Amino acid sequence: MSYQIIDGFPSTSGDNYQLNTISIIRNAARTFPDVEIVSRIKDGINFRYNYQKAYDRIGKLANALKKLGIKPGDRVGVMEWNTHRHFELYFAISGLGAVMLQLNLRLSQVDLAYVVNHSEAKAIFVDESLIPVFQSVADQVKTVELYIVMTDKRLDEVKTALKPVHSYEELLEKEDAHYDWPMINEKSAYSACYTSGTTGKPKGVYYSHRCIYLHTMAIAMMVGLNLNDVILQGVPMFHAQGWGLWLVGPMVGAKLVFPGRFTVETTNILVDLMISEKVTFSCGAPALLIPMLEYIRTLPEKPDFTGLRIISGATEPPLSVLRGYWDLGKAVVMHAYGSTETTPLALINHFKPTIKGWSKEQEWENQRKQGLPLAALDIKIVGVDGREVPPDGQTVGELLVRGPWIASSYYNDSRTEECFVDGYWASGDAGTIDENGYVKITDRLKDVIKSGGEWISTIDLENSIMCHDGVFEAAVIGVPHPKWQERPLALVVLRNDARGKVTRDAILDCVRGKFAKWQLPEIIFVDEIAKTSVGKFDKKTARSQYIDYFATERDSAIQHQSP
Amino acid sequence: MSYQIIDGFPSTSGDNYQLNTISIIRNAARTFPDVEIVSRIKDGINFRYNYQKAYDRIGKLANALKKLGIKPGDRVGVMEWNTHRHFELYFAISGLGAVMLQLNLRLSQVDLAYVVNHSEAKAIFVDESLIPVFQSVADQVKTVELYIVMTDKRLDEVKTALKPVHSYEELLEKEDAHYDWPMINEKSAYSACYTSGTTGKPKGVYYSHRCIYLHTMAIAMMVGLNLNDVILQGVPMFHAQGWGLWLVGPMVGAKLVFPGRFTVETTNILVDLMISEKVTFSCGAPALLIPMLEYIRTLPEKPDFTGLRIISGATEPPLSVLRGYWDLGKAVVMHAYGSTETTPLALINHFKPTIKGWSKEQEWENQRKQGLPLAALDIKIVGVDGREVPPDGQTVGELLVRGPWIASSYYNDSRTEECFVDGYWASGDAGTIDENGYVKITDRLKDVIKSGGEWISTIDLENSIMCHDGVFEAAVIGVPHPKWQERPLALVVLRNDARGKVTRDAILDCVRGKFAKWQLPEIIFVDEIAKTSVGKFDKKTARSQYIDYFATERDSAIQHQSP
Repeated sequence: MSYQIIDGFPSTSGDNYQLNTISIIRNAARTFPDVEIVSRIKDGINFRYNYQKAYDRIGKLANALKKLGIKPGDRVGVMEWNTHRHFELYFAISGLGAVMLQLNLRLSQVDLAYVVNHSEAKAIFVDESLIPVFQSVADQVKTVELYIVMTDKRLDEVKTALKPVHSYEELLEKEDAHYDWPMINEKSAYSACYTSGTTGKPKGVYYSHRCIYLHTMAIAMMVGLNLNDVILQGVPMFHAQGWGLWLVGPMVGAKLVFPGRFTVETTNILVDLMISEKVTFSCGAPALLIPMLEYIRTLPEKPDFTGLRIISGATEPPLSVLRGYWDLGKAVVMHAYGSTETTPLALINHFKPTIKGWSKEQEWENQRKQGLPLAALDIKIVGVDGREVPPDGQTVGELLVRGPWIASSYYNDSRTEECFVDGYWASGDAGTIDENGYVKITDRLKDVIKSGGEWISTIDLENSIMCHDGVFEAAVIGVPHPKWQERPLALVVLRNDARGKVTRDAILDCVRGKFAKWQLPEIIFVDEIAKTSVGKFDKKTARSQYIDYFATERDSAIQHQSP
Repeated sequence: MSYQIIDGFPSTSGDNYQLNTISIIRNAARTFPDVEIVSRIKDGINFRYNYQKAYDRIGKLANALKKLGIKPGDRVGVMEWNTHRHFELYFAISGLGAVMLQLNLRLSQVDLAYVVNHSEAKAIFVDESLIPVFQSVADQVKTVELYIVMTDKRLDEVKTALKPVHSYEELLEKEDAHYDWPMINEKSAYSACYTSGTTGKPKGVYYSHRCIYLHTMAIAMMVGLNLNDVILQGVPMFHAQGWGLWLVGPMVGAKLVFPGRFTVETTNILVDLMISEKVTFSCGAPALLIPMLEYIRTLPEKPDFTGLRIISGATEPPLSVLRGYWDLGKAVVMHAYGSTETTPLALINHFKPTIKGWSKEQEWENQRKQGLPLAALDIKIVGVDGREVPPDGQTVGELLVRGPWIASSYYNDSRTEECFVDGYWASGDAGTIDENGYVKITDRLKDVIKSGGEWISTIDLENSIMCHDGVFEAAVIGVPHPKWQERPLALVVLRNDARGKVTRDAILDCVRGKFAKWQLPEIIFVDEIAKTSVGKFDKKTARSQYIDYFATERDSAIQHQSP
């Protein structure tokens, strides 16, 4: 995407000095040589070194890659847990001008093969434990010329059918730590990540050096990270740049902690490291934060998390999560919003000191919003008519974002056209913005109802209906309407003991007040709601089932008729 | 200066999105609309508004400038105290693509006229109180087409011979707040500042939008400024971008305090504002910080400066300044280094938590150093042989700096060639770097002695000699030597009561231990040392006086002879 850009008067600044990732670790080795990096190998065994030693290994790795024939512009895939080697690979591959391709180890075989082939990856780094994942697609990938296994064993002790194959550590043993790092055009890709959306093939986002550099500075600045912090890399580094935290560490001189291999079943690993390494900053989805809290409840001594901040993303953190960490020393969970296309951080929830007179309840409610845009980003929430919605916290629109670390296209993909508009990435997420500037994402846009020229959030309606004790479950869908374009139709399943007793009007009472009159849904009681194979409401089927519901100009909700 | 830059693989990031200053205040108006800006008009009278209202006035100002014929690329001079209008001008002028030329109100008439003519400024904004300064050069400036006076009076009440002349506030009254801000090539100049060196004509540094944007993020990040801070703009905004603090405010959502007109005689203004506005961050040279402390001593109640941080630049802060603020609630004075060419911040002293086991005395001593390089900058300290000096805190070299906010040339000036080397700015400052990465600047390079292939700091030698009680004053100069190229010669004036009693060896005892043998000076006792008109040692005269001193291979210091 190109903008209309005007020229002013020439500057005398060093504008040709390129923002390169390698300079971040090079500067850390110079300014913070002794700051520690801790990498968990397995239970109770941590590998410890520092920025100077990491930089030396990164130099060796780059020398090895060069000898293996990796050149500027090549794509090199990495499938690895959150380890110090993953950290080294990010710098060494991008430092020599190649692209570090993140490989999500949870992708389906079909998608994994697609990503490797679409990016035309030349080499693959794979952790010993993940060799089977890669072997399963090895015969489908077309461009890979070599594999490098990451292990502490000797290569001849490793079982693998991948070939030709090298050992990461054995390669490093032979090399010199000095590498003559080139200055790379900052608009070149440093890393690539493919979306893992549920519809269609993964889409390739290729992040520039400039993009990740500015993203890193913005996070450090907005959440206030500095050389007194200890950062735990809680989010997988193969997923959306690991939210960039591993790069904030060397940027500001903070200590880094890599937890190695863990899953949602073994989040005790994260908690134990947070306690033993005195972590002050971490990140993770509520899917991680909830089991972590549960594990903490089992500990004989409650940890003191004073000063701890956790960025929480993906889904809205339940109030119990916010409160749970707060009770451990006023630790703050900051809800954030992002996606593969936004590198990923676009919004983050930090309290503005200007919001005075709020009750603690209001603060909690506000803290569940996705928050404020990061500095340097332009955002818009646009309604059906393409104009920005008013900042009333109610009117729903689609979130659009642009800025130096927001994608402006997909690599070699015809879907670019539908997802990028006037330099903005169209998120496909529907939400509101309030008078304090806080954004709340409510639905995927495709689930939102377009009615009378405005959008109505189905998820907000569903949550309100669920407030009625008699309701077992409820799904709201948009159904064509001759006058209003679409109108919300609520399919409500009552609890057994409530059937025949609860009226539609009683349920609407739960919705009134929170929604405008024209947003109130038509309610029908049903015995069950169709579900997909993973247990979500099958709204597509429901919509086709009730497609003619309003064809005869029924409009009871607007007229507030009782059932 | 261009670097050798290689291309990698194309990215899909929004790399064409330009870093523009206007986006900083536009984002602040969106995200932090209510955050306050306080501007002192005169004693006891403060103008108060917020980021939203400032942005509105900036829009009006840009509309007015456009109607006055100011176009992208034009240079517009500003001579003003630290006020909200100065703040608005920075954004409005640069936002429409023109260049805000900083005019230092302490320049000589000759230099002021030179700066205006060299930059070919088209319009001049001048505070009512500074009209006489500008009138004194009005007949020498050749390109100025119009003047705008900043005052709260009506224009017809203002006495001025400048013409044609407009009133800032009257221009704004007529305008609309909406301005259709262009996206400006980030390599275009946003502002210009001319050096005020003592030798030769001022040199023009034209800062790009990109340069100041990255500088702002780096400061916010490295000193940890955020929306809970209250920033006092202590450094004049006509001097080296006011160290960029006024721009950090809207970047992070901190409250801003502008002190208006003040001098080193009226620093009580700064202290009173720090107390009344609950300032957490400020900046200033020791020339300001010392009288501020003196004023604080006269207050009946000591202020509580808990959490306060002050960046101190220009000269080394005396220990009494560091301790003085520390005693007011552990307020931290952070010594920093910069110059017009470095936008200005290049080094800043913040404690690394890894330096353990230090005594408080060692910490104080370390805190007086200029500190660590800011992230994103490359620095080198190179010795006589052009190679980097070892990090031993002793070996002297010249500081070289490069990076995205370091100048790479002077505007239209033949002196560019001698001051920029391989993309680095050669600072002309001599100093050392220690094992912890801290830089200490000791001398101007021209005052350093080149001996036996290494440099010796004259100021360090002088300070050591001054440690002897019998010494009244001492100046060390470099004198040609047949074997060692140059050798240090110390001219020492003894106190009256010490004459004839103190030996040269006794004085050398103060120097030994701190310096290597080969660095020890030859000492001669003199009755007086020649001085310049401003009371500094006239080393040029002294050097010519003793030019033949070592011609006959005298080398007593090296051989440790007694006098």
